[in-house]
Amino acid sequence: MIYFNCDYNEGAHPKILERLGATNWEQTPGYGEDAYCEAAARLIREKCERADAAVHFLVGGTQTNLTAVTAVLRPYQGVVSADTGHINTHETGAIEACGHKVLAIPSADGKVTAAEVEALCTAHETDATHEHMVQPGMLYLSHPTEVGTLYTRAELEALRAVCTAHRLVLYLDGARLGYGLRAPGSDVTLPLLADLCDLFYIGGTKQGALFGEALVIANPALQKDFRYLIKQKGGMLAKGRLLGIQFQTLMEDDLYLTMSRHAIDQAQRIRCVCEEKGIQFAYPPQTNQLFLILPDEKIAALGKSYQLSPWGRADEEHSIVRVCTSWATKTEHVDALLRDLGDGKC
Amino acid sequence: MIYFNCDYNEGAHPKILERLGATNWEQTPGYGEDAYCEAAARLIREKCERADAAVHFLVGGTQTNLTAVTAVLRPYQGVVSADTGHINTHETGAIEACGHKVLAIPSADGKVTAAEVEALCTAHETDATHEHMVQPGMLYLSHPTEVGTLYTRAELEALRAVCTAHRLVLYLDGARLGYGLRAPGSDVTLPLLADLCDLFYIGGTKQGALFGEALVIANPALQKDFRYLIKQKGGMLAKGRLLGIQFQTLMEDDLYLTMSRHAIDQAQRIRCVCEEKGIQFAYPPQTNQLFLILPDEKIAALGKSYQLSPWGRADEEHSIVRVCTSWATKTEHVDALLRDLGDGKC
Amino acid sequence: MIYFNCDYNEGAHPKILERLGATNWEQTPGYGEDAYCEAAARLIREKCERADAAVHFLVGGTQTNLTAVTAVLRPYQGVVSADTGHINTHETGAIEACGHKVLAIPSADGKVTAAEVEALCTAHETDATHEHMVQPGMLYLSHPTEVGTLYTRAELEALRAVCTAHRLVLYLDGARLGYGLRAPGSDVTLPLLADLCDLFYIGGTKQGALFGEALVIANPALQKDFRYLIKQKGGMLAKGRLLGIQFQTLMEDDLYLTMSRHAIDQAQRIRCVCEEKGIQFAYPPQTNQLFLILPDEKIAALGKSYQLSPWGRADEEHSIVRVCTSWATKTEHVDALLRDLGDGKC
Amino acid sequence: MIYFNCDYNEGAHPKILERLGATNWEQTPGYGEDAYCEAAARLIREKCERADAAVHFLVGGTQTNLTAVTAVLRPYQGVVSADTGHINTHETGAIEACGHKVLAIPSADGKVTAAEVEALCTAHETDATHEHMVQPGMLYLSHPTEVGTLYTRAELEALRAVCTAHRLVLYLDGARLGYGLRAPGSDVTLPLLADLCDLFYIGGTKQGALFGEALVIANPALQKDFRYLIKQKGGMLAKGRLLGIQFQTLMEDDLYLTMSRHAIDQAQRIRCVCEEKGIQFAYPPQTNQLFLILPDEKIAALGKSYQLSPWGRADEEHSIVRVCTSWATKTEHVDALLRDLGDGKC
Repeated sequence: MIYFNCDYNEGAHPKILERLGATNWEQTPGYGEDAYCEAAARLIREKCERADAAVHFLVGGTQTNLTAVTAVLRPYQGVVSADTGHINTHETGAIEACGHKVLAIPSADGKVTAAEVEALCTAHETDATHEHMVQPGMLYLSHPTEVGTLYTRAELEALRAVCTAHRLVLYLDGARLGYGLRAPGSDVTLPLLADLCDLFYIGGTKQGALFGEALVIANPALQKDFRYLIKQKGGMLAKGRLLGIQFQTLMEDDLYLTMSRHAIDQAQRIRCVCEEKGIQFAYPPQTNQLFLILPDEKIAALGKSYQLSPWGRADEEHSIVRVCTSWATKTEHVDALLRDLGDGKC
Repeated sequence: MIYFNCDYNEGAHPKILERLGATNWEQTPGYGEDAYCEAAARLIREKCERADAAVHFLVGGTQTNLTAVTAVLRPYQGVVSADTGHINTHETGAIEACGHKVLAIPSADGKVTAAEVEALCTAHETDATHEHMVQPGMLYLSHPTEVGTLYTRAELEALRAVCTAHRLVLYLDGARLGYGLRAPGSDVTLPLLADLCDLFYIGGTKQGALFGEALVIANPALQKDFRYLIKQKGGMLAKGRLLGIQFQTLMEDDLYLTMSRHAIDQAQRIRCVCEEKGIQFAYPPQTNQLFLILPDEKIAALGKSYQLSPWGRADEEHSIVRVCTSWATKTEHVDALLRDLGDGKC
Repeated sequence: MIYFNCDYNEGAHPKILERLGATNWEQTPGYGEDAYCEAAARLIREKCERADAAVHFLVGGTQTNLTAVTAVLRPYQGVVSADTGHINTHETGAIEACGHKVLAIPSADGKVTAAEVEALCTAHETDATHEHMVQPGMLYLSHPTEVGTLYTRAELEALRAVCTAHRLVLYLDGARLGYGLRAPGSDVTLPLLADLCDLFYIGGTKQGALFGEALVIANPALQKDFRYLIKQKGGMLAKGRLLGIQFQTLMEDDLYLTMSRHAIDQAQRIRCVCEEKGIQFAYPPQTNQLFLILPDEKIAALGKSYQLSPWGRADEEHSIVRVCTSWATKTEHVDALLRDLGDGKC
Repeated sequence: MIYFNCDYNEGAHPKILERLGATNWEQTPGYGEDAYCEAAARLIREKCERADAAVHFLVGGTQTNLTAVTAVLRPYQGVVSADTGHINTHETGAIEACGHKVLAIPSADGKVTAAEVEALCTAHETDATHEHMVQPGMLYLSHPTEVGTLYTRAELEALRAVCTAHRLVLYLDGARLGYGLRAPGSDVTLPLLADLCDLFYIGGTKQGALFGEALVIANPALQKDFRYLIKQKGGMLAKGRLLGIQFQTLMEDDLYLTMSRHAIDQAQRIRCVCEEKGIQFAYPPQTNQLFLILPDEKIAALGKSYQLSPWGRADEEHSIVRVCTSWATKTEHVDALLRDLGDGKC
């Protein structure tokens, strides 16, 4: 059985394991105050071209999201998100458990537009009873989105302008950021994100680390006392150096982007065969997540050899399955899948 | 200027003020443990035909809703509601501030159907990742709804069956319950609600009290320690007898229903003229809230004499206005409005 | 049975009931945006000599405390309080339910000193692991305290200086503020409180209103969006004018102080007899709450005619009882009590 | 510089790293639903002799504590703890951020007694205003405590009896449990804990894992839906197998106890020299944490070669320092320390 169901099926890039082994007996301070965390943070600041950014390392995505949202919002504020956003659908109400409503905008492609956010904010501000309603305080984007789609630089700039006009903090969830940065045709870069976002995170868990996300707080006004909240929310790893070592490894020699590129290349091969064979996609196949619309019997047949992720029905005879590649995807596994999809030449 | 914009513009029924005056110098225990609260609770239990119901008096609707939801839900559970539900739109995120997500079902008429709730619960239970999602734990209904519509006995029974099948607690917000109980053709009664709901409240604030809501916890399993939560959430009135005295007055001699009937009668007069004149309603005109679709210039003209509640646009030339009657509505005020709407004979 | 157990046994001052009756049929906007609330707020601003203060009316003390604390603190901050403070002991964990720890300072007389607060803040700031601890963010005082004691102007000024030095918000709970303002020898005034406190409230519930507390936010930096939180926490009264009318009445013609003075005068009579008879007090008898140390058999005997409030044991043969006077205390009731305490001449 | 300041300065036992390497390319399901987690859970159930226990793996101690407390308590309940308890002092208010008060009992040795807990519960239950106070709902113990002390079997049995009598859930924080299990003279075992506690956790982070704690929910009534809460609180590791692999390794061949024994042996050597040299301890030296009372100049001298943990002043000329050994402590490092403490023969 070959797993294409998600991008966190394997462990970590061997260099990470090697580095963990090499440093194992070193004695370091705890809680992220070691030299590895500092080195990793420095590398990230450099790549973001933001010397004044604060960088924090957390263990996972839900933890990072809930900590960031809690740090930023006033108690009566909510976070605007596509209804498909991870914080709205797959975090068991973590944001609400921290006291905040997710103000969901219906989305067909995982994205929200500047016009939609503008309309939501204006509706709030002009409502005579706005004090009886949750005030929008933050915009949550994911890039790539939950369905693998990407924002363009122009779209992000327009969203930034709306956020500035309506005093929303702009937060970007980059759980799969590397796959977005290496997607063909994308004009989004780390310096751009550091410039447009108040804060965002660079995902590690789905990008070749054992675990870990690097939160970049680009806006100095939001940096104060953040470590108190990491601790309170249970995200301060005692052996914080594990996160520093992993991100240092990922950031050196562009390993992060190299690994991302591998996943994208493999995804493009699958996309190519699908297009040859006339297989439709439920969402534009831009990154490492592909949402294939296949006949139910084909899905059943594939299910004997491959673990795919069911994503709902398309019509009476077709369903959607998510196929994920990752930094760890083996070329021969994709070879096999392509054969079983119809033996294209990609 | 005559106010038809809502049903809480005036003070209270004169009998309530009279009773407050007559008892003013009595010395009673505080926090709702006085004889007036006990007498009022007894009357409510009798009218509900539920000797084992617990009855608590709270000051307002948002407070009652957030206390009830907090008491019932486990931390990872959410409350299912029409997207138009008061808890979803007009309580500044009070439910989320208590840690719970509102699981909103789109609604065109303020109501949800048994099939919709069933589908939502089944979708959760059958999702392989359901532990990553908020578990439905309660169904919130309002009756009358935010847009003045009503459930039938059959609809409520079907919703109860779904709740039982999926282990949802059924909670009904009766901020305007009297207006529903006295609406023409309604087959919903207090004993029926006590039978079908786990808990519900009988509204006072919009029904002739200065303030106050009577929460009936019909399900004994939910009664334990409820007063702790009332206190914690800031809802335990020191001079609790003020609530007891008011509800005792409302419940004696069917004053509550008599007052509600007055509002309904006045609303029916407006409805009658609208139908004569061909004025459309945005929602079925079942109770004391009427949502008239009027030309914008007509609304502007009416606005010189009447305070109405704007409720959005209907089309390019028409908007919706809410017209509320109440226990306090003066017949001559309705006379004037009817003349200005077109001099019908109602 | 005569009640001396607390200061909220009766209804309200007759002028309040009269005014509620006189305005009953007026139609006003809801939620505290009526002319009565504005007039009452203006009077309070005048008496505080602070034209830029925001004044909000809430229903009760716990509600006011939890809303104020939520508005001010960051999520990782706690509120410093005497361990006897109401928020620490008698609000069923309302502050914690809003996410904040009460940082309790042991207190023998209900008060905290500047030195104690200074020490607590310094201990936090100098601890190497302070990010693992709750950061002090607010100082909560009550004046009079839970045991009827009072701060002096000099003590409050010293506490203010500590708050400023350590960036604590200074909040004062004035549930019984009038009794403090009229206590013999007190040099604390409303303008002083408005000058020293960031926010404080003027109690109504225990001071002759049916219910209600007037929160004065003197610090403009804390005023923004406060009404959102009042709504979210369930404290926004639909018929907000009830609060405006009551506080307007209390503030006109110095009724608030006149009523407070009455309670103090009656308390002084009891104090006088106790001192004549050698009855000890558990706490200095400064305001309307007196904590008498009496032989258990004496307490049992008094219990046949008077409702007193038990306050723990003093020694093997003596216990403490709280005796409260109020704006509503009848002179002849005190006469009777004095006779039963030993027939002093006060 | 040699670190004796805490027990999480190094990485993990080499067998753990080896196992992580060996399994790195395996494809497994995520979120703790893999075979390694199941195998580790099975081993723990066997060692606890409780086939019906639920075992969950979380990343860290604060996360485990806050998730367990949230799962168990009703919103108006608090958790009883020694005032020195980790949840009361070093989790930045994590418990309060989840809505619950810590009901602290003053403790001189890190422990609470059955009599103290009994008194606290009885005081609550017999207070006429108990609904205005936080209800005790859970007892939190740590074993070893924050100051390295241990409960005896008899003490735990007495605490269990109080919990049963007053309906408290008994939860034990075993961040350093192995060091307690291997302490000389301790009669506490895993089966005993599974028998007496409703839930407890077996610490990994301070016991030779990279990270991780194993929560054992022995009481079946508390097991339902627990994974929802792990996810909501940010504790569900995507690559959950990392936890399974680590705990499987620790539990096989009694590695956990062997490593703990090493730490204890080294600690006993330090204790032996201290006793020889007349060095006093601030707390009984029972486990791997030793609290030495030393002259300030001696501490300054040691500080040139050793990282120790300052623990407050003892008197004018002496302070307390914490010396920790661990699974990773090198014998030659202890040799050096013993020489510098005075060249004893231990």
